[in-house]
Amino acid sequence: MVAAPGLDVAPALRQRIADLYCEYCDALDDGALERWPDFFTATCLYKVVPRENVERNLPIGLIYCESRAMLTDRIVALRQTALFAPRVMRHMISGLRVRAVEADALRVTANFTLIETLVDQPSRVFLAGSYRDVVVEDAGTLRFAEKLCIYDSTIVPTSLVFPI
Amino acid sequence: MVAAPGLDVAPALRQRIADLYCEYCDALDDGALERWPDFFTATCLYKVVPRENVERNLPIGLIYCESRAMLTDRIVALRQTALFAPRVMRHMISGLRVRAVEADALRVTANFTLIETLVDQPSRVFLAGSYRDVVVEDAGTLRFAEKLCIYDSTIVPTSLVFPI
Amino acid sequence: MVAAPGLDVAPALRQRIADLYCEYCDALDDGALERWPDFFTATCLYKVVPRENVERNLPIGLIYCESRAMLTDRIVALRQTALFAPRVMRHMISGLRVRAVEADALRVTANFTLIETLVDQPSRVFLAGSYRDVVVEDAGTLRFAEKLCIYDSTIVPTSLVFPI
Repeated sequence: MVAAPGLDVAPALRQRIADLYCEYCDALDDGALERWPDFFTATCLYKVVPRENVERNLPIGLIYCESRAMLTDRIVALRQTALFAPRVMRHMISGLRVRAVEADALRVTANFTLIETLVDQPSRVFLAGSYRDVVVEDAGTLRFAEKLCIYDSTIVPTSLVFPI
Repeated sequence: MVAAPGLDVAPALRQRIADLYCEYCDALDDGALERWPDFFTATCLYKVVPRENVERNLPIGLIYCESRAMLTDRIVALRQTALFAPRVMRHMISGLRVRAVEADALRVTANFTLIETLVDQPSRVFLAGSYRDVVVEDAGTLRFAEKLCIYDSTIVPTSLVFPI
Repeated sequence: MVAAPGLDVAPALRQRIADLYCEYCDALDDGALERWPDFFTATCLYKVVPRENVERNLPIGLIYCESRAMLTDRIVALRQTALFAPRVMRHMISGLRVRAVEADALRVTANFTLIETLVDQPSRVFLAGSYRDVVVEDAGTLRFAEKLCIYDSTIVPTSLVFPI
């Protein structure tokens, strides 16, 4: 069926969801990585998986976190490591869409492209893929109960340690 | 005039149009090419044209289909050919906008960038350009009566056989 | 706080802002550079600054204009110069968001990626970054009182002479 007829989401809620994704991307693009875990519920699921695995129903992901605390740990580790050259990530989002409205959760998908810029280099495509997220109302705020980041490439970019 | 003053499109209709483009891109990005013809009316126009030709008023396009049946033929041919390496396309859409509301049709434009990912290669920009579409209500569903895909480059990417 | 709770912008105004950015990008992508100054108020601020400078609070930008007349001068100069190879720019915008509603102005931010296409070359990422704009109502039309274009790279792309 074309254009998801019948999927009726109130404009105000659509706008809040759009704002959530804006805020999420802005925090990461501004390098405010410490804010990242706050976009998730205390118990949550964050996975980064190559598309190939999703198509073959292989649940193995490159990155797997199941609580906000684990996300916080990742950021602490990332800040402490000196392995990576300074770089700027820029999130481009397209096709943000509510796919299903459940009793207490929304299933939301979107396409993303991350543009990476290293010092003294031109900007370039770093990663393209899609989000398959579960968004919930959590004490008056929309947060991710699940964020599944499916990337298109089969090679593993080293800077996948950064939040997608 | 800035920002098309006076072009008054009801929010619900704007949302349906946005959903149509989301659905269109998702189908293609998911590789569900057999769904592609269903986004068009039975009689339709699908053209892929370099920008250069549009500026010179040369109507000649690289790809030209004038019915849903022709679109279906393209997909069958595409599935049967073994010429092309497996690849993933990712549609990024920006600036979706209703340009004109006519008696029974909407003129809609948008920018697109397609990010291509081949096996064991990083993602990269494949094609950038714009859509100039005519969207109609067709038995309760929004469909493309026309989709003109104008791409910016002067070279012909071989994988233009894929739906844009 | 997630998703800017409490920032209440009427849907009609959000839509007008979205239309403003569509129109702005379309004018530039269509090569209608002479229309560019009309998107700004008579007294305005247009700056193009590397992100590095913003982070260090160095106000020095690569490009600095403080009136519509200066913007017009830029376009005249650009049209007269023969230094640059013909190219097409394509603006992709993501994460457009009203950050603050002031008495007579709106603070608006967005991410941008510019895709550049030169003759006989494939399209590629030219510039990624973000806008930090001030939008005002100017005789019934939304215009930019300020447009700050912050780009991510540290190298200076020569074609920055083009409007961002």
